[in-house]
Amino acid sequence: MMKIAKLLLHCPDKPGILAEVTDFITVNKGNIIYLDQYVDHVENIFFMRIEWELMDFLVPQEKIEDYFATLYAQKYEMNFRLYFSDTKPRMAIFPFHLFPITKETKEEQEKKEMELLAKHKITFIVLARYMQVISERMINAYPNRIINIHHSFLPAFVGAKPYHAAFERGVKIIGATSHYVTTELDAGPIIEQDVVHITHKDTVQDLVNKGKDLEKIVLSRAVQKHIERKVLAYKNKTVILN
Amino acid sequence: MMKIAKLLLHCPDKPGILAEVTDFITVNKGNIIYLDQYVDHVENIFFMRIEWELMDFLVPQEKIEDYFATLYAQKYEMNFRLYFSDTKPRMAIFPFHLFPITKETKEEQEKKEMELLAKHKITFIVLARYMQVISERMINAYPNRIINIHHSFLPAFVGAKPYHAAFERGVKIIGATSHYVTTELDAGPIIEQDVVHITHKDTVQDLVNKGKDLEKIVLSRAVQKHIERKVLAYKNKTVILN
Amino acid sequence: MMKIAKLLLHCPDKPGILAEVTDFITVNKGNIIYLDQYVDHVENIFFMRIEWELMDFLVPQEKIEDYFATLYAQKYEMNFRLYFSDTKPRMAIFPFHLFPITKETKEEQEKKEMELLAKHKITFIVLARYMQVISERMINAYPNRIINIHHSFLPAFVGAKPYHAAFERGVKIIGATSHYVTTELDAGPIIEQDVVHITHKDTVQDLVNKGKDLEKIVLSRAVQKHIERKVLAYKNKTVILN
Amino acid sequence: MMKIAKLLLHCPDKPGILAEVTDFITVNKGNIIYLDQYVDHVENIFFMRIEWELMDFLVPQEKIEDYFATLYAQKYEMNFRLYFSDTKPRMAIFPFHLFPITKETKEEQEKKEMELLAKHKITFIVLARYMQVISERMINAYPNRIINIHHSFLPAFVGAKPYHAAFERGVKIIGATSHYVTTELDAGPIIEQDVVHITHKDTVQDLVNKGKDLEKIVLSRAVQKHIERKVLAYKNKTVILN
Repeated sequence: MMKIAKLLLHCPDKPGILAEVTDFITVNKGNIIYLDQYVDHVENIFFMRIEWELMDFLVPQEKIEDYFATLYAQKYEMNFRLYFSDTKPRMAIFPFHLFPITKETKEEQEKKEMELLAKHKITFIVLARYMQVISERMINAYPNRIINIHHSFLPAFVGAKPYHAAFERGVKIIGATSHYVTTELDAGPIIEQDVVHITHKDTVQDLVNKGKDLEKIVLSRAVQKHIERKVLAYKNKTVILN
Repeated sequence: MMKIAKLLLHCPDKPGILAEVTDFITVNKGNIIYLDQYVDHVENIFFMRIEWELMDFLVPQEKIEDYFATLYAQKYEMNFRLYFSDTKPRMAIFPFHLFPITKETKEEQEKKEMELLAKHKITFIVLARYMQVISERMINAYPNRIINIHHSFLPAFVGAKPYHAAFERGVKIIGATSHYVTTELDAGPIIEQDVVHITHKDTVQDLVNKGKDLEKIVLSRAVQKHIERKVLAYKNKTVILN
Repeated sequence: MMKIAKLLLHCPDKPGILAEVTDFITVNKGNIIYLDQYVDHVENIFFMRIEWELMDFLVPQEKIEDYFATLYAQKYEMNFRLYFSDTKPRMAIFPFHLFPITKETKEEQEKKEMELLAKHKITFIVLARYMQVISERMINAYPNRIINIHHSFLPAFVGAKPYHAAFERGVKIIGATSHYVTTELDAGPIIEQDVVHITHKDTVQDLVNKGKDLEKIVLSRAVQKHIERKVLAYKNKTVILN
Repeated sequence: MMKIAKLLLHCPDKPGILAEVTDFITVNKGNIIYLDQYVDHVENIFFMRIEWELMDFLVPQEKIEDYFATLYAQKYEMNFRLYFSDTKPRMAIFPFHLFPITKETKEEQEKKEMELLAKHKITFIVLARYMQVISERMINAYPNRIINIHHSFLPAFVGAKPYHAAFERGVKIIGATSHYVTTELDAGPIIEQDVVHITHKDTVQDLVNKGKDLEKIVLSRAVQKHIERKVLAYKNKTVILN
C-alpha cells in the first residue's frame, strides 16, 4: 500500500487558500489523490480535506506538520489535523473491561479507565450502550473523539428510554443518531442519522427490535467516516468531507 | 358505484365482538368487502374498521346507526362512527377567504370563519401554512377533524421556524409531520410522517426547498387516509386501519 | 403462553365467507385475537388470516383441520393451511453440512440432503449464499418453503454477479430481494425488498459492503414473516397479511 | 450576482492536473469558490468540476475556453465544458407545441421540431411523457442533453407499461429513473433514481398514483443537477459532482 497523508483543515474563507495548499503539495512532488472542500457562506468558513501520496514527497513525513503550521496556520488562522495512512486509529469500545461504578467510586474508576486508554494508545472511544454519563474531564481529554449512538432521531427524545418516549408520542417513524459526546447530554455534533417506519401495531419491544439493526448501521457508518478522517466537527455540527 | 357503509369503532377488548358484528351484517344480507382490526394489548382496546355493500342490506340506511347504538354501544362500551360512500367529506383549506385577524378581532373573525364552514357543511379542515393558532373553541367544534402539516419530524422542532432550528442543530435528516390539531401546540395525534436526508452543504433555503415536496406528499397522504375513513384517533395517537 | 390456532386461506370471493368462518370460531368458544383479510378484485380471490385462542375451543385441536375441510373446503373451493402456536417451524440453513457437489454427484447428494432435512423435520429452508441451483425435485418437495436472498432489486440483475451488473449499468440505487424459490431462476414470489442509495464513487466492493447489511435485513424480515405465518403465496406473488 | 465560470472536465488520471488547473486560475486572480473531483480507479479517469469568480480574472471571458484548450486539452487528453453563470440553460419540454406524428410524417415533423428548438436556442430537452421514440438524428444533435423520466427502477421494466409489468411481477417496491436519452431504449446514463414501497393491496392504478409524485421529484432533481452543471456523463454512466 502506498503511504498517504490526509489533511483536514478549516479557517476563515479567503481567496487563494485552495490553490496555495494544492500548489505546495504538487511542487513538492506530492500526488494529490483526493480533495473535497466546502465553504460555509453563513459563517464564512473554508473547510478542506486533501489526500496525497507521500512516495516522492520532498518534505519528510515528520516535518509536514511543522511546515503547514509555519506556512499557513497563522497566515490563514487555520486549524488543521494531519494523519498518515500508516498510523491506524485505535478504538476503545465501552466497557469490555468492567469498572464497577458507584457515585462514590466514579472519579477513581474513570481515572483507571483513562489510564487503560492511555496505555493502549486509544485515539477514539465508542460508547455502545455505556450506561454512565461521561465526566467532563474524560470528554475534554477526547474532544470529538467519543462517539455515542443514541436510539432516537435527535433532537427528539433526548435522554433515557427513547423508544418508550417514541411509543408514547405515537410517532410513525423511529430513528437512530450517532454523535460526538459533549458535556451537554445528547447535544453533540451529529455524524449520522437514519430512520425506519413503524405503525400503531408496533409495541415498545417491536421498536427496540426494529431499532437494533438501525443502531448498528448508523453507528458503523459513523465510525467508518471517523476512521477515514472524513468528519470535521465545527461548533456544534459536523462537515462530512469525501 | 355500489353504495357502501363504513364503520369505525373502538371499545374495551372482549371475546366475541368481531364475530357478533360481522354476523349481524351478514345475516342481514350485507356483503362485507373489507375488515381490519387491531387490539392494543397495553390499553386493552379493540379497534375495527369494516366496510359492507348496502344493496341487499335489510336494515334501512338511516336506521343503521340507531341499531348499532342499541345493540352494541352500551353492551361493549363502544365508540363508533358510521359513514356512507354517497356522503362525500367536505374539506376547507385555510385561508382562501381572507379574514384579517388582529388580537382584538380574532374572536369575531373566527366566529365568521365558523359560520362560513357551517354554511358549506365542511366536515374537516386542512391547515396549509395557516399562520394563526387555532382557538380552543374551533378545535372543539372539529375534534380530530383539523389536519395540520408541520415542517419537521415531530416531536423535534416544535413551534415556529423548524427549518431554522434543524439547520442550527446540524441534523442529517429533516422531516414533515401531519397531525390532528389539539389545544396543545404541535402535540396532536400524528397521522403521517416522512423524511429526507440532507448534508452540511444544505442552507436553510435548501432545507425549505427540500421540505416543500415532502410536506405536500405527507399532507396529501394524511388527507387521503382521513377521507377514506381509515384513521382512528385514540387518546393522543392514531390507529391507521386498512 | 396461551395456545393459539392460525388459519390462512384463500378461495374465490363470495359473500358470507368472513362471517361464516368467524361465526364458527366464536360459537365454538374460540376467542379471535387477530384477523386480516384482503380481496384481489382483479383475480376475484378472497384471502384471510385469522388467529384464535384454543383454551375453551370446543373442537379438539387434532380435529380442527378436518372440520374446516368438511365445512368449507369444498363449498368455497378453499385452500387453507392451519398452524398451532405450539408447533415451532423448523428451519434449515444451507449448507452448514458439507455435501460436496459435482455434476455427477448432484442427484445423489441432494438425496442425502433431503434425508437429513426429513430426519430433522425441517419445515422450511433458507438459502444463505448457497451456490447451487436447487433441483426441481427439491423445490417440489418444499413448495413456497425455500427462501432465497438475491442481492439485487429483482427483476433487475437476475442471475450471477448482480453487484457487478449494477456497477456496470451505473444505477444510483441497489437493492436486495427475498423470495420463494421456484423452478424459474430468481422469478419466484417476492416476500420482501429494500434498497440503499449509492453514488458514482462506489466501487463494486463498496456495493458488496453496502449490500451486506441490506441482504441480512431483507432476509431476516422475510424469515420473520414466514415463521409468523403471514405470507400467502398465490400464483407468482405474495399476499402479506398481518 | 457575481459572474462565475464553471468548468467540467475529464481526462486520463495523471499527477499534477488538479494543482495545475487550480494554480492557473489563482495566479490569474480567479477566486475558486467550489471544487469537486473524483478519480475512477478502474478506468483511470480523472473528473473535476470547478467554479471561480470572474470579477478580477485576468483572462477575458471569451478567451478562457481557448486558453484551456491550448494549455491542457492536448497535454492531458482532456475533455472539458465551460459554462458561465450569465448564460442561462434553455429548456424545452415535449411537446407543448403540437406536432402530429404518424409513421409517414415523423421525419418531416422532427425537422420542424428541431427548427423550433434552434430558433429558441434550446440547450436541453425534457421528455415529460413524450410518447414518441426520439430519432437518432435528434439524439445526436443533443448528446446527453435530452432528459427522460422512465416510470420504473431501471433496468427493471424497460419499455412500455412499466407499472403493469411491476404489478404482474409482484414487486414490493416501485421506482422512477431519470436518464439521458441514447439510441438504445431506456439504457442511457442514469442521473437520478428513487423508490417507494408498495404492498399486495396496491392495484395498477395505485402504482400509477404513487409513482406520479415520485416521477416528478426524480425528474426535477435530475433537471436541477443538469442546469447546475453538476452532471458529467462518461461512457454509459454519470458522475455527479458537487
